[in-house]
Amino acid sequence: MTVITAPFINQDRLSRTIAELATIGKLPNGGVCRIAYSPEVISARQLVQRWMQETGMTVRIDAAGNIIGTYAGQKTDAPALMTGSHIDTVPTGGRYDGALGVLAGIEVVRVLREHSIRLDHPVEVVVFTDEEGGMIGAKAISGTVFKEPEYYRRDDGTSIETCLQRVGGDWSKLATAKRNAADIAAFVELHVEQGGVLEHHGKQIGVVEGIVGQHRYIVTVIGRSNHAGTTPMSMRQDALVTASQIVLAVNHLAKSSSGSSVATVGALSVFPNAANIVPGQVELTIDMRDVDQEHLILLSEQLQQQLQAIAKSNRTEITITPILQTEAVLATPRIQTAIEQTCKEMGFSYCHLPSRASHDAQEMGLITDMGMIFVPSQAGISHAEDEYTSPEECAQGVNMLLQTLIRLDLMYPV
Amino acid sequence: MTVITAPFINQDRLSRTIAELATIGKLPNGGVCRIAYSPEVISARQLVQRWMQETGMTVRIDAAGNIIGTYAGQKTDAPALMTGSHIDTVPTGGRYDGALGVLAGIEVVRVLREHSIRLDHPVEVVVFTDEEGGMIGAKAISGTVFKEPEYYRRDDGTSIETCLQRVGGDWSKLATAKRNAADIAAFVELHVEQGGVLEHHGKQIGVVEGIVGQHRYIVTVIGRSNHAGTTPMSMRQDALVTASQIVLAVNHLAKSSSGSSVATVGALSVFPNAANIVPGQVELTIDMRDVDQEHLILLSEQLQQQLQAIAKSNRTEITITPILQTEAVLATPRIQTAIEQTCKEMGFSYCHLPSRASHDAQEMGLITDMGMIFVPSQAGISHAEDEYTSPEECAQGVNMLLQTLIRLDLMYPV
Repeated sequence: MTVITAPFINQDRLSRTIAELATIGKLPNGGVCRIAYSPEVISARQLVQRWMQETGMTVRIDAAGNIIGTYAGQKTDAPALMTGSHIDTVPTGGRYDGALGVLAGIEVVRVLREHSIRLDHPVEVVVFTDEEGGMIGAKAISGTVFKEPEYYRRDDGTSIETCLQRVGGDWSKLATAKRNAADIAAFVELHVEQGGVLEHHGKQIGVVEGIVGQHRYIVTVIGRSNHAGTTPMSMRQDALVTASQIVLAVNHLAKSSSGSSVATVGALSVFPNAANIVPGQVELTIDMRDVDQEHLILLSEQLQQQLQAIAKSNRTEITITPILQTEAVLATPRIQTAIEQTCKEMGFSYCHLPSRASHDAQEMGLITDMGMIFVPSQAGISHAEDEYTSPEECAQGVNMLLQTLIRLDLMYPV
Repeated sequence: MTVITAPFINQDRLSRTIAELATIGKLPNGGVCRIAYSPEVISARQLVQRWMQETGMTVRIDAAGNIIGTYAGQKTDAPALMTGSHIDTVPTGGRYDGALGVLAGIEVVRVLREHSIRLDHPVEVVVFTDEEGGMIGAKAISGTVFKEPEYYRRDDGTSIETCLQRVGGDWSKLATAKRNAADIAAFVELHVEQGGVLEHHGKQIGVVEGIVGQHRYIVTVIGRSNHAGTTPMSMRQDALVTASQIVLAVNHLAKSSSGSSVATVGALSVFPNAANIVPGQVELTIDMRDVDQEHLILLSEQLQQQLQAIAKSNRTEITITPILQTEAVLATPRIQTAIEQTCKEMGFSYCHLPSRASHDAQEMGLITDMGMIFVPSQAGISHAEDEYTSPEECAQGVNMLLQTLIRLDLMYPV
């Protein structure tokens, strides 16, 4: 290929596509509701496919319902440089989470085409299926999808077979969606941070170190329900006192950790939950995340030891049930370096940070080189209608994606 | 009067009346459901009235629906020695709470009559209306009833006017139910402990020091909801971490208190209560009780100071709303002494303890000399079907009531 100096993306056009996509599933306060497989997400998929086609991409839908738009490269049979994200949302989502990464890919191809640039590698822009619900699209590509269709049954009872049909997929052929390192050179995803780290540090771009591993538990504390008036303090087996010590232990463990760990008790329910009854039982969740997999395992072990000690000292019983364990996936170092160098070239302030939320990229990282670029989220707000990233920040991110793909095209031999 | 040595009550007869009353509103697992003003409580009231009449008492129903059985004394116009309790229950109640105190009064009169004993004072046995719901019966006698009928409207919408009609009362004449020290010399209530103190210390009889005062609050903690993955520990305003510190502070305050205080966070609700969201808001109740009114006020002040400090250190906001404040009512010292001396005479092991639950006696203590006698509750269980006090323990309590009333008859001049 011929190296072209710095083509820039069209910020106004990018903003218009973000705004137009946000009209589908529009909520009253600026957010969107496009739950996977819903009529809204299907409309949005049609719009995105049309844009891909208008931009000169060939579009196919794989068995997992992933939309894959391909902008051909100069070298036939070269593995793809892939980017993309998702356009499904949580029930009251924002207009940037996922959508920005998809629209960024389309904008990048538009710019390449306007400048008559063809990279050596084909560029693939992917809309992954159901990122918010279970990442079946990305998991089908990485080959980690659960075999049992029941696992993916929707809360409303709809089977995954029916869901995939709606979006042009086919559960019985899911294995055909699997990809590998031979046909994908690298994957880079642009996403809003969904946290407040970039804003807090006043940085324009986040170079993602990896996607944190996650351990999630349900903890049940069994004490003894008793009259809150007639039971002296010394005779109580108060499950909520134990649970409160657990909440503080979880918080302290992550706060005093040397790494970038976070740990949260987000849900907690008390039984029987009456003002005049000493709580007999408490159920709570613990969510721990760390980009350093070994450190995450160490923290989990420390937590379990502490919990047993707390239970014992309060004459209550604790049971700990693991309900989720995902491994940390590191961003490929040379892609991190490429993103960092691009930041320097373009004059963007940046910092390294882990992604503490899940992303399609974590599945792609299992089969190919992977990197992620973050742009700031105002006040760290995400999964909410008032999620906001300014037009300038969005454009900076898309320019970073464009230049990074051009850089990777040079880095990866064909 | 002539002093008669130690008449004893009839344990078998007492047990039969307890068992017979428990057939009305009988539940499958040994408990009873006789909610105030229900058909069941009305049947039970009829049975108790019949027993009173058969025992030679004159029976009247006051405007609050209280059943008052009077066994005449030798001295006309002497103020009454009053005893009694209630026969309404919580929805799944036991067969002893309240019922024992009423049936004890009837058994005492039966024994007096069998032995042809008439005390100087008339003996009144009272069935107080709706102890479990709002103590309107005892409050009408003490003159502390709320003026607004709406306050007493039932959860099912029934007005208090209708309720009182059902039990022979009359809301419009409620003031006529008021009594005073001139016509009641003293009130003594026998009740099951509803806690585990007597059993724990291996004592047969509890000499009640008073009925605890109670402060109850609703506390709202406002933090900020945020993504449990993407929000670093240092940037969190976790309402549940603050709430957990409050739970422990409340527990510690009562535990380290010099008195007999109890303090409980019994109900706690988290918002939005999802495993992957840092809690943005928590609502919880605080219930504090102490028989020493000044100490209770001091504890409440300490609590509020600690809560403000906790809120500040976590960058969360706390609002504290008082929802209930009842004053501690001390048992009259000379009645406590009379009960204690009776224990010694009868050879019963005993200890002093506060009543940490509410009782009709607390209202009676506002207008006359008051005392309470406790018998053990197995495993401290109460307000439950498996509430249990053995026939021997019940009989010991009723013998104590009988001998205490005889002692008070001598103590109080006519």
